[in-house]
Amino acid sequence: MSAVPVASDQARLDGRRVAAALLDGLRAIGADGVGITRETYGPGESAAFDLVERTARDHGLVTARDAAANLVVALPTAPGALAPSASAPCVVVASHLDSVPHGGNFDGAAGVVAGLLALLRLHAAGVRPARPPRLMALRGEESAWYGKAYLGSSALFGRLAPEDLALPHRAGGGHTLAEAMAAAGADLARIRAGERLLDPAAVAAYFELHIEQGPVLVARGMPTAIVTGIRGNIRHSRVLCRGEAGHSGAVPRWLRRDAVFAFADLLTRLDDHWRVLQEQGLDLVVTSGIVGTNAEEHAISRIPGEAAFSFEVRSQSRDTLEAFYHLMRTECRAIESARKVQFIFDRRLDAAPARMDDALVKRLLAHSAALGLPAETVPSGAGHDAALFANEGVPSAMIFIRNDKGSHNPEERMDMDDFLAGTELLHRALAEAAGAGEGA
Amino acid sequence: MSAVPVASDQARLDGRRVAAALLDGLRAIGADGVGITRETYGPGESAAFDLVERTARDHGLVTARDAAANLVVALPTAPGALAPSASAPCVVVASHLDSVPHGGNFDGAAGVVAGLLALLRLHAAGVRPARPPRLMALRGEESAWYGKAYLGSSALFGRLAPEDLALPHRAGGGHTLAEAMAAAGADLARIRAGERLLDPAAVAAYFELHIEQGPVLVARGMPTAIVTGIRGNIRHSRVLCRGEAGHSGAVPRWLRRDAVFAFADLLTRLDDHWRVLQEQGLDLVVTSGIVGTNAEEHAISRIPGEAAFSFEVRSQSRDTLEAFYHLMRTECRAIESARKVQFIFDRRLDAAPARMDDALVKRLLAHSAALGLPAETVPSGAGHDAALFANEGVPSAMIFIRNDKGSHNPEERMDMDDFLAGTELLHRALAEAAGAGEGA
Repeated sequence: MSAVPVASDQARLDGRRVAAALLDGLRAIGADGVGITRETYGPGESAAFDLVERTARDHGLVTARDAAANLVVALPTAPGALAPSASAPCVVVASHLDSVPHGGNFDGAAGVVAGLLALLRLHAAGVRPARPPRLMALRGEESAWYGKAYLGSSALFGRLAPEDLALPHRAGGGHTLAEAMAAAGADLARIRAGERLLDPAAVAAYFELHIEQGPVLVARGMPTAIVTGIRGNIRHSRVLCRGEAGHSGAVPRWLRRDAVFAFADLLTRLDDHWRVLQEQGLDLVVTSGIVGTNAEEHAISRIPGEAAFSFEVRSQSRDTLEAFYHLMRTECRAIESARKVQFIFDRRLDAAPARMDDALVKRLLAHSAALGLPAETVPSGAGHDAALFANEGVPSAMIFIRNDKGSHNPEERMDMDDFLAGTELLHRALAEAAGAGEGA
Repeated sequence: MSAVPVASDQARLDGRRVAAALLDGLRAIGADGVGITRETYGPGESAAFDLVERTARDHGLVTARDAAANLVVALPTAPGALAPSASAPCVVVASHLDSVPHGGNFDGAAGVVAGLLALLRLHAAGVRPARPPRLMALRGEESAWYGKAYLGSSALFGRLAPEDLALPHRAGGGHTLAEAMAAAGADLARIRAGERLLDPAAVAAYFELHIEQGPVLVARGMPTAIVTGIRGNIRHSRVLCRGEAGHSGAVPRWLRRDAVFAFADLLTRLDDHWRVLQEQGLDLVVTSGIVGTNAEEHAISRIPGEAAFSFEVRSQSRDTLEAFYHLMRTECRAIESARKVQFIFDRRLDAAPARMDDALVKRLLAHSAALGLPAETVPSGAGHDAALFANEGVPSAMIFIRNDKGSHNPEERMDMDDFLAGTELLHRALAEAAGAGEGA
């Protein structure tokens, strides 16, 4: 039989207890009266890192912080397991501990807790894997705070540009990302230099467990599923449509330059394109999550001279992203001409789509079948740090856990039994990739 | 020849000086660093009333405040001219002195200053008109402050409902309209009782001079024009489109309940209807001046669960208003069904359209021709207190003055020569309607 350690009843019981205690602790750190708020590179995220680190050490694991202020946890039995760029290959299990404002307790945290449980199981079994496993709690996965996502893993691979580091805090914190990173202990000099803090060639495999952030697993009655690919996106945080203000009663239709009608026209055209492209089988979602007229000058009886909005398109296909983006800009030019308005774009932000590793996906499906879990795949509509690792050439895979009520809101609902089933799956795949059988 | 007094060169010179001093004084009162702000039933409006009243008295006119805190100015030679409800008919010339936030200096104020000059001319001529003329500076014409317009004239005719008086200050002043009215000296008990503070049957004619708030007179090269009718409107200050928030990457198109796409769909449908109805010759403008997602919960990566917007339709035809409003509600129901959202409407506010008096319009056209001014008519797209007087059965008429750059903004531009030409026209029509020749 397999050399991979199989959970005893006792180990399962301990896992449930450790997970419940950790998730309770994380909830207490993030509780904001409405939901959970653990700010990217902020005090709540740091407190969550401290709690996970303390728990890991209390159970005999070793820990470190890397130069991007990410947390690294390893088995004490693996020599050099904490070295930032191990020369011998390692395997990584990771997720994040920040949240959107008023978010839920499981988006990100579930993956860190599951990774810790998997390491504790390997530690309890006394194995010495050939490719030492490490848990990473990655900083700043959520774009809600600085407008850009995957900050900790981007820093890890030397991919934070100067303009990223200068991004201002979105909720008017009055500081930049660089300032928050420095306060959290990151080494800005190395990050500014674009240094690779982790050599992707040294990572044999990357795993991430995450709650599903959509309704598919609930709808299909599946506690877990294996992710095949991760949608990328193209975004503008703020597009300004500028027309001309005027008295709402006194300017006739043909002399109007109404910014709100122009915005509505754009969105309706994009909606039509989206429908058609999706009917052709393309993977695509489009969102304008933030919209507003200028409160300094808007009025019921005033033709709106300005409307600002965010734009986001997501797809698993880079070609689809580019094609839709091009379509959007073309429609803007058509509307500019037809309605005598102007669309002014801020910096375009890209997050590349990623494919999960076929071999790892196959192994996860096999482990699922062995555990009586669904051997089913789903795409990930949301982005994850796994996409960055995959696009750096690291073979990567993800496990989704069923979750009711979506994510990024206080109502996220993950059942503990689903979580422990996913954790068992993660543990098996991690142990196998680490070569726990060989090293034991 | 006519018994109506004709301006001497000296009178014209004095008029220009008095007007310039008054407009300068009003500008000083309203200057807010950006434009002009004289708040409805607020300190700026009251200070403007004081300035006009002082100027009137300095020139020998008599003044009073009515129970709605409007200013009334009359000739000292007309017995009982200030009585709120004269038994003998009077003629009224009126406009307002409040502004929108960061508005211009001429919207409203031009009409009050012109009315004062007309009265000063009659006073200087020593006439004793049969139907004593009175200038009224009406309170609260702008809807920007409490969401409802024509407050001073509505109070005058007992037409402020309890829900109007309870309207909150829109910029978060923390007080209601009733509280602002009381602070400005209005008699709330009489206004709450719906008492008619002015008997419309006692008003033989109503005149209002106003800057045009659109681009028509500039485009047609006309310094003045005579108004034939005033658009009414139907408004909602706030319509809430409620869908369901969700992760922008994780919820597929067919499961979305996106409030912003639903709003855009509504506006685009209304735009199509508007175009078609206008091509059929109907008079119509549609505006959504205030739009916004909920800042408490919106994010670039979040499907917007809420979008709030204002709605306004204006037309000279009551039937067109009702038909378009019905169309809008029908489209909302269709979108609710198609997109699984809900439109929640606040109180509907109506301002009836009004026709100007044919006989008065004819006289104003005749005076225009005599003065070498364009004998041309235009409709008024914006609403005015004149509409309320007309709808109370008072024969009413308006003179528009050419004005570049629209209104409700600091760039309003009225040429003093245009203004004095319009004032001469107003003076002639007022003197004639008052029977100045008969009483002189």
